[in-house]
Amino acid sequence: MKLAEIYMQFQSDITIIEKELETTVQAKNDILQEAATQLLKAGGKRIRPVFVLLAAKFGQYNIEDLKHIAVPLELIHMASLVHDDVIDDADLRRGQKTIKSKWDNRVAMYTGDFIFGKAVETSTFFSDPKIHQILSNAMLEMCLGEIEQIRDQYNWGQNFRVYLRRIKRKTALLIAVSCQLGALAAKADQQIQRGLYQFGYNVGMSFQITDDVLDFVGTEKQLGKPAGGDLRQGNVTLPALYAMHHDVEIKKLVKDMLATNYPENIDISSILNAVKQSGGIEYSIEISDQYLKKAYEALERLPDTKEKTYLREIATYIGKRKF
Amino acid sequence: MKLAEIYMQFQSDITIIEKELETTVQAKNDILQEAATQLLKAGGKRIRPVFVLLAAKFGQYNIEDLKHIAVPLELIHMASLVHDDVIDDADLRRGQKTIKSKWDNRVAMYTGDFIFGKAVETSTFFSDPKIHQILSNAMLEMCLGEIEQIRDQYNWGQNFRVYLRRIKRKTALLIAVSCQLGALAAKADQQIQRGLYQFGYNVGMSFQITDDVLDFVGTEKQLGKPAGGDLRQGNVTLPALYAMHHDVEIKKLVKDMLATNYPENIDISSILNAVKQSGGIEYSIEISDQYLKKAYEALERLPDTKEKTYLREIATYIGKRKF
Repeated sequence: MKLAEIYMQFQSDITIIEKELETTVQAKNDILQEAATQLLKAGGKRIRPVFVLLAAKFGQYNIEDLKHIAVPLELIHMASLVHDDVIDDADLRRGQKTIKSKWDNRVAMYTGDFIFGKAVETSTFFSDPKIHQILSNAMLEMCLGEIEQIRDQYNWGQNFRVYLRRIKRKTALLIAVSCQLGALAAKADQQIQRGLYQFGYNVGMSFQITDDVLDFVGTEKQLGKPAGGDLRQGNVTLPALYAMHHDVEIKKLVKDMLATNYPENIDISSILNAVKQSGGIEYSIEISDQYLKKAYEALERLPDTKEKTYLREIATYIGKRKF
Repeated sequence: MKLAEIYMQFQSDITIIEKELETTVQAKNDILQEAATQLLKAGGKRIRPVFVLLAAKFGQYNIEDLKHIAVPLELIHMASLVHDDVIDDADLRRGQKTIKSKWDNRVAMYTGDFIFGKAVETSTFFSDPKIHQILSNAMLEMCLGEIEQIRDQYNWGQNFRVYLRRIKRKTALLIAVSCQLGALAAKADQQIQRGLYQFGYNVGMSFQITDDVLDFVGTEKQLGKPAGGDLRQGNVTLPALYAMHHDVEIKKLVKDMLATNYPENIDISSILNAVKQSGGIEYSIEISDQYLKKAYEALERLPDTKEKTYLREIATYIGKRKF
């Protein structure tokens, strides 16, 4: 079954979540309202809400409960993107102007804060403290991931473990928690909750590594921004790590080129090519595939349902996507 | 009774809260840990926790419950200060280097996010959704206040109502909520909760107006930063609003002077003097006193206890303080 068909199956419930997202970010302030609406309109795959819905099918599925877990998860993701764009000094996201470029960094900071606050407010629907603990923990780990990214910027000597821990915190955990909370809110068995968490974590890792690969091999049209952005901003991801680890010449090239004053304006196509020729792309795809395999394994331990096959489809799509 | 004596009465419980604050901001990351610890060590009056404790005395006082409400309130306050320093581009706070000056704006942003997250995490101790709703609403209103401050910056034509709504959101609400939640966590009567909220709101308004007055009349030593900082950053507060409303000459002076490229470096002593001579200081003190009076009135409707006299003392101290 194709991805679009899976989405179609949940069309009406995704629409309910979309409406709830819109209602939730209503603000009594024009700038905030406009900034938040722009973020919503920019779209995105709503992958976290979809994971919530699919996971909940392993328990007692009730969209009126579930929307209150899907919305905060998507909002936390959105808020982190806004704050991320400040860090990355990014002017474009998905081909559109970012909040920080349309207004400024200060507006981006408070728009992010506002959306975080709305995420917390929405989740107060649930009285189970465990849900709040899992959500706030996910927020905290994401902050740690972001601070680590700042700390590790332009550090060309970091090891693979540091990279993997960072993407776990930045990306994989929120996807893991989306699967876990969908199951928890639907009162599925503990073991199912754990299995779905494992699935989400491994899908998230595969997703981020694929993202990092695409930043090297994607076209500007596919990415909605020029390729090599990570490297230009000093973010060392797996393909570059591999290349620099196996070829000191590349390491020197990267260090020298990015030691210039305006690394954002320089032509880094020679570095991109060197990384591509080092085998770093193939290696990264292999690691991504290993996580994907672990995600499949986590699924195997779950009851055989059609949602299980959907989860497998989405995982494959995410891990193997070409843009 | 003097303020120090009131604090002495709660010494052991304030110590418990202080320890809980320290434990709460423990982070698995050096930068975050150092930044958060520095914030804690910088001190402050811990006025919000003290209000929680005093308010709880009108119900069933239990410090082991109360610390879980005092800590998130203080953390939300601290996080807002960190993000505030980014907005104000402030290098000093209470005479110490700010996070954004010691590290950078990006670290300040994520330190703030982290502390917000910790506030949410700590409050999960309570299962009463009302507590979470009140807390998240306070966070949201503070964001609105901050965004309004950005919007209103350098807007010399804003009216008094806009100023009052902004300081309500930025300052008064969190103090109101501290009093309310102390009473709520201690299961005090609804009417007492409402009375304490009213008290806190009016104290908070008086507090912020006094703060804004001190920015004009305080010495650098008293303020821990040079006087006139608000004006220099384009933040229009009550004394300046009054002056510009009553004297078009002052309005022109302010506009012209701050239209220069580097308003932070110019000598604004002539503007400060003009505001002082306009009667804006006396007017602002009068408004602050009116709020203080309303705070006293809210107290009068509460049962006669020694904590009521303490609250009155603290309100007077806060509203009438000279630095």
